[in-house]
Amino acid sequence: MAPDESAHEVPQPASTLDDPTYRTGITELIGILCYGEISACERLAEDATMAPQLATKAEIMAMMAAEWDHFEKLHERLQELVDDTYGFIEQFAPIFDRFHAQTRPSDWLEGLVKAYVGDGLAADFYREIAAYVDPETRELVLETLSGTGHSDFVVDAVRGAIEADPRVGGRLALWGRRLMGEALSQAQMVVAERDALSVVMVGGVDRPELGLPSLDLAGIGRMFARITESHAERMEKLGLDA
Amino acid sequence: MAPDESAHEVPQPASTLDDPTYRTGITELIGILCYGEISACERLAEDATMAPQLATKAEIMAMMAAEWDHFEKLHERLQELVDDTYGFIEQFAPIFDRFHAQTRPSDWLEGLVKAYVGDGLAADFYREIAAYVDPETRELVLETLSGTGHSDFVVDAVRGAIEADPRVGGRLALWGRRLMGEALSQAQMVVAERDALSVVMVGGVDRPELGLPSLDLAGIGRMFARITESHAERMEKLGLDA
Repeated sequence: MAPDESAHEVPQPASTLDDPTYRTGITELIGILCYGEISACERLAEDATMAPQLATKAEIMAMMAAEWDHFEKLHERLQELVDDTYGFIEQFAPIFDRFHAQTRPSDWLEGLVKAYVGDGLAADFYREIAAYVDPETRELVLETLSGTGHSDFVVDAVRGAIEADPRVGGRLALWGRRLMGEALSQAQMVVAERDALSVVMVGGVDRPELGLPSLDLAGIGRMFARITESHAERMEKLGLDA
Repeated sequence: MAPDESAHEVPQPASTLDDPTYRTGITELIGILCYGEISACERLAEDATMAPQLATKAEIMAMMAAEWDHFEKLHERLQELVDDTYGFIEQFAPIFDRFHAQTRPSDWLEGLVKAYVGDGLAADFYREIAAYVDPETRELVLETLSGTGHSDFVVDAVRGAIEADPRVGGRLALWGRRLMGEALSQAQMVVAERDALSVVMVGGVDRPELGLPSLDLAGIGRMFARITESHAERMEKLGLDA
């Protein structure tokens, strides 16, 4: 899916960011990722307070520190693109606040499943997006996806809880489906609200001149199929029906 | 205050940690520092939720990530000293829980002053302790004291609030005195409860053989004078009477 710049005979612009619509879309993308990281840190901080043991609290805090590290990398890049970075990032708060308001965990296990499934979905979605952006942005996006490396304990905790009480499995499976539904509906709203961002994804500017691939309707369909499939694999890993 | 090992003619043990009381004291010290970092992260996470702006929320989260980094360094060392690190650390929870229960901030500004004054006091106290421990432990303790580097914004925020409403200054000055009083009383309780730890501080084993200095009563007096003086300087920096 990497762009094949040599295939185009037209002259390349000095930078794809010279295209104003593309630049706006990429800046919005990084802004969204920034707020997403802050939001993830806040949610993990809440989860940490619910942790039943000090060791699991520490695992959650380590995930939080990893997300913060991602935020700093993204924020550094954003500083090159806009002056008032926080003012810029703040506009994306409603996206995440809506999602979190609709998916407030009622206990520790729901929080764990949300952290695991939510991070996985976000990573899948951003990895898909990465294929449609310039190499520098792609590298940054992929770098901040390099998992927090602390999720094995989530699998153990959820599987352990289901073993102790099988009814927990049914409740958490429903919860997983709700998380997936809300995530998709929020993603759809973002694309609908953000013209420049959707242009980055689906083209609409002279994409071949920018040396970047673009998504057609069939491509969008395949993308959602891939994301749904990965979600099902994650649920299975947790011992839950997707 | 650094130990002058050459001044002692007696043979040096292979490691000061060969002395069981000293080893227990040092292990307790590192355990306390570990729980202190976890506790600081939790408190900063609470502060972050109260932050009035996204930029200040991010400053608080950056402080939290720095504390977490300190935790990881201390925890790595603790793993060399005990098997069940979290079980070990957990015993120190009451020290910090007592302190936090007695000093629950009623608003964002009290939270900021607590973060600033509390971290400063902790750093001063641990720096004093560092003088009485073996070089390896000293290096670790000093490394984890290397401030979070994000406290300038606390000074600006507190001074700005006092300028906007001078009555705030009186309230926060009282708050700062209460923080100091509680911190000292908790520190005193820790030393009273922990024999091995107080032995590390005030001697009682064959200190010269261990090549380490020990504190006498006059030394303890001077130590508290130094800590009180630094506290007054910090309060002044915030624009508050000590």
